[in-house]
Amino acid sequence: MSWLTAAAGSPYGIHNLPYGVFAHAGRPARIGVRIADAVLDLAGAEEAGLILAGGALREPTLNAFLALGRPQWTAVRHRIVELLTEPEHEAAVRPLLIPLTEVALRLPIEVADYVDFYSSEQHASNVGQIFRPGQPALPPNWKHLPIGYHGRAGTVVVSDTPVVRPCGQLPTGAGTPVFGPSGKLDIEAEVGFVVGPGTRLGEPVGVADLHDHVFGLLLVNDWSARDIQAWEYQPLGPFLGKSFATSVSPWLVPLDALADAWVPAPVPEPPVLDYLRDVPHLGLDLRLAVDWNGDRVSEPPFATMYWTPAQQLAHLTVNGATLRTGDLFASGTVSGPRRDQVGSFLELTWGGREPLTLSDGSTRTFLADGDTVTISGTAPGPDGTTVGLGAVTGTVRPARAA
Amino acid sequence: MSWLTAAAGSPYGIHNLPYGVFAHAGRPARIGVRIADAVLDLAGAEEAGLILAGGALREPTLNAFLALGRPQWTAVRHRIVELLTEPEHEAAVRPLLIPLTEVALRLPIEVADYVDFYSSEQHASNVGQIFRPGQPALPPNWKHLPIGYHGRAGTVVVSDTPVVRPCGQLPTGAGTPVFGPSGKLDIEAEVGFVVGPGTRLGEPVGVADLHDHVFGLLLVNDWSARDIQAWEYQPLGPFLGKSFATSVSPWLVPLDALADAWVPAPVPEPPVLDYLRDVPHLGLDLRLAVDWNGDRVSEPPFATMYWTPAQQLAHLTVNGATLRTGDLFASGTVSGPRRDQVGSFLELTWGGREPLTLSDGSTRTFLADGDTVTISGTAPGPDGTTVGLGAVTGTVRPARAA
Repeated sequence: MSWLTAAAGSPYGIHNLPYGVFAHAGRPARIGVRIADAVLDLAGAEEAGLILAGGALREPTLNAFLALGRPQWTAVRHRIVELLTEPEHEAAVRPLLIPLTEVALRLPIEVADYVDFYSSEQHASNVGQIFRPGQPALPPNWKHLPIGYHGRAGTVVVSDTPVVRPCGQLPTGAGTPVFGPSGKLDIEAEVGFVVGPGTRLGEPVGVADLHDHVFGLLLVNDWSARDIQAWEYQPLGPFLGKSFATSVSPWLVPLDALADAWVPAPVPEPPVLDYLRDVPHLGLDLRLAVDWNGDRVSEPPFATMYWTPAQQLAHLTVNGATLRTGDLFASGTVSGPRRDQVGSFLELTWGGREPLTLSDGSTRTFLADGDTVTISGTAPGPDGTTVGLGAVTGTVRPARAA
Repeated sequence: MSWLTAAAGSPYGIHNLPYGVFAHAGRPARIGVRIADAVLDLAGAEEAGLILAGGALREPTLNAFLALGRPQWTAVRHRIVELLTEPEHEAAVRPLLIPLTEVALRLPIEVADYVDFYSSEQHASNVGQIFRPGQPALPPNWKHLPIGYHGRAGTVVVSDTPVVRPCGQLPTGAGTPVFGPSGKLDIEAEVGFVVGPGTRLGEPVGVADLHDHVFGLLLVNDWSARDIQAWEYQPLGPFLGKSFATSVSPWLVPLDALADAWVPAPVPEPPVLDYLRDVPHLGLDLRLAVDWNGDRVSEPPFATMYWTPAQQLAHLTVNGATLRTGDLFASGTVSGPRRDQVGSFLELTWGGREPLTLSDGSTRTFLADGDTVTISGTAPGPDGTTVGLGAVTGTVRPARAA
C-alpha cells in the first residue's frame, strides 16, 4: 500500500508505474513515473540520491534507461515501490510529486526504427473483403509469417499532437490521379512495443527472448489516409498514406506491470515454422477502447491477435537485422470478430458504405475536420486490480491551404 | 591549385572534397574531408582554430554539421579550399593530412529515416516483365508518382561491412514456405541523398528547394534477398528481404561539387501534377559501375532516372511528413536501357534464367558466398575534371548456422 492514498484502487497504482517524459514549470523535459494522478519526478529523485540509475533518469528521453536492460529496470522499479510505500520516504518523495494537470507530456522515447505489423486475422480479413471482394480474404503468406513493414520513425508524435489532414495523390478511377486533401482519413488502433537493449548485426532474437529486449508497451494510433494509400501502395507498400503522423500514448507501461495479463493466443493453423514457435504461446489480454468525439464506438480485444509480440520480434530479426534502443514495433490494427470490436473506421463503416451516426446526430464514414479520436486501454493486474494503459488522442485539423 | 601536388588531376581534387568519418591510430572516430589519397582531419583543423564551425566538426558523425545548413556548408567549403590552396597554410595543415591507407572509414552519418524509391523506368519495367509476365510492365501509378517505401535505418552500414547471407521464409510454389538461407541474394546499385536541415510537421518541401535540404550524396548497395522478398512483399511491401543490410559509400559528396553534373532529365509523359513539376527538370549525370569479383559487369547511367531527387523530396514531404537531419533517401536501382547498364543481378541474369560467366570461368545467377561486389561512380566536374563518388563494397559471408 502506498502512503499516497490516491493510489489505492487507481489503475495507475503501485502495480502499474508507467514511465513518461514531462515538462513542468518551464523547465526542460524530464523523466517521471505516473502514480495515480501525479507524476513522480524521477530525474529529481536521482538528483537527490533517492534512486541510482547511473544518470539514465536525468536524460530528456527514456532511451538511456531503456538501454540498461532488465536487471536494472527491475531494480529501479523495486526502488520506486519502496519510495512510494515505505513511510520513512514520504517526506523526501512527496515534494517530487507533481499533479498531472500541471505537466505537459512529451514523446517518451526517441524512436529508432518504427515497424508496423498486420497481425489481427480479423482486421486482415476485413480489409481483404473490403478492398478485394471475390478474392481470398487473406493473402497466401498471412498465416505463415507476421507481415510487417517499416513506417516513418520521424513522424511518431505524442498524444494530443494535432493531426493535419494530409494532401496527396487521390485515385479517380480513371487512371489519372488528382491532388487534394485526403477524403478518407482513418485511424488504426494498435499496441506498440518498445525495445531496450539492442543487438549486433546478424544475431537474431529468439522467440523466447522477448523480455530481454522489450521494456514495455504503449498505445498507437497509426493514422491512415485510405485514398492516398490505395493509389500508392502497389507494389512497395504504404508510404505517404501513413507517414504524415503516428500518435502514441505518453505512458510506457512496463511488461513488469503486465505479468497477470498474459493469456493463451489463438492456436496457429497451419503450424508455424520453428523460429516462430513460442511455447507457451501467449498473447496479452489488453482491452482497448475507441472514442469518436466522446462516443465509445469500439472495444478492440488485443487477446484475439493471431501473431504474438514474441513472434513479431523473432520474425523482425530472423534475417539478422539489428535491434536498436528505441525501436518501436506496433501490432497492426486490433480488430475482434464483432463490428463493435474493430480498430479502424474503414472496418467500422465497412469501407464507408455503412455510415455511423454519432450521439450528436451527425453521421460519419471517415474523419471530419475537428473530430477527436481517443484510444485508451486497460489490462488485468494482480489481485483483481486493473492496469491503466493511458490513452492516445488526436484532433483532426483542416488540410494546409495549397 | 592545391599545394598538395597529388591533388592535381585526382578525382578527389580540390573540386570535390567529400566528407567522411574516420578512425586513426586508435582514437575515437572524427570528421575529415578527402583530398587525393589523404584525409584532412577537420576535427583537428577546428581544434587548431583553422576552421570555425561551432564545434560541428568535432562530432563523431556529420549530423551536427549537416544541420547547420547551406550558408555554413559553403563557408566551410571555401575555408577548406583556402587551407589547401594558399601556401601560407601549408605548414599548419600538412600535419593534419593522414594517408587513406592508415584510416578506417566509418558510417559518416547517423541515419534518421531511410526511404528507398523506385525511380528508374527501365528497372521497374524489367522487374515487371520478370515477375509479372503478360501484365503491363509498369504499375498504373508508376508515371504519376515516385513510388517509395521506408527501409530499416538501423541496418544501414558503411562500405566494407561483411554481408551475412540472410535466412528467412522461402517460397516453394506449393503455398507452404521453407526456412533457410536465401538462394537469391542480389544487389541494387543506387544513389542516396542525405538531408541536412529538417522541417516542421505539416510543412512540405517544394520541388525547388532541394538545395536547402540536401547536403550531398553517396552510393548505396541495397542488398536484396529476392526469394524472401517475393514471398513476403504482398500486400505491405519489402521487409526482411531488404532489412538485413544496406551498404553506403564512406564519402558524402557535396552537391557543391556536382554543379557541372546536372543534365536534363527524361521528359515526363504524361505530365506530372503541379507539386512534382520542377523547372528546370534536371537529373544528375552520375556514371556508376558495378564490379563482381573484380569483373566490370555493368555501368548504370544515373542520368536516365525518370524521377529526379527534387521530385522525390517534394513527394516524400507533400503529406506534411517532417524531414530530420540524417534522413537518407535513395533513388532505387539505377538501370539503363542496355543489359550492361542494369543495377541488379536479377536484371543482369534476367531472373536467373540467363547466367553470367565471370572471368575466372565460374558462372553466376545470384551471389555466391565469398563474392565481392563494388559499386563505384564518377561525375563530370568543372573544367573537364572528374568528380569521384567513392565506392561501396561488400563481401558475402555464409549464412549463420541454424
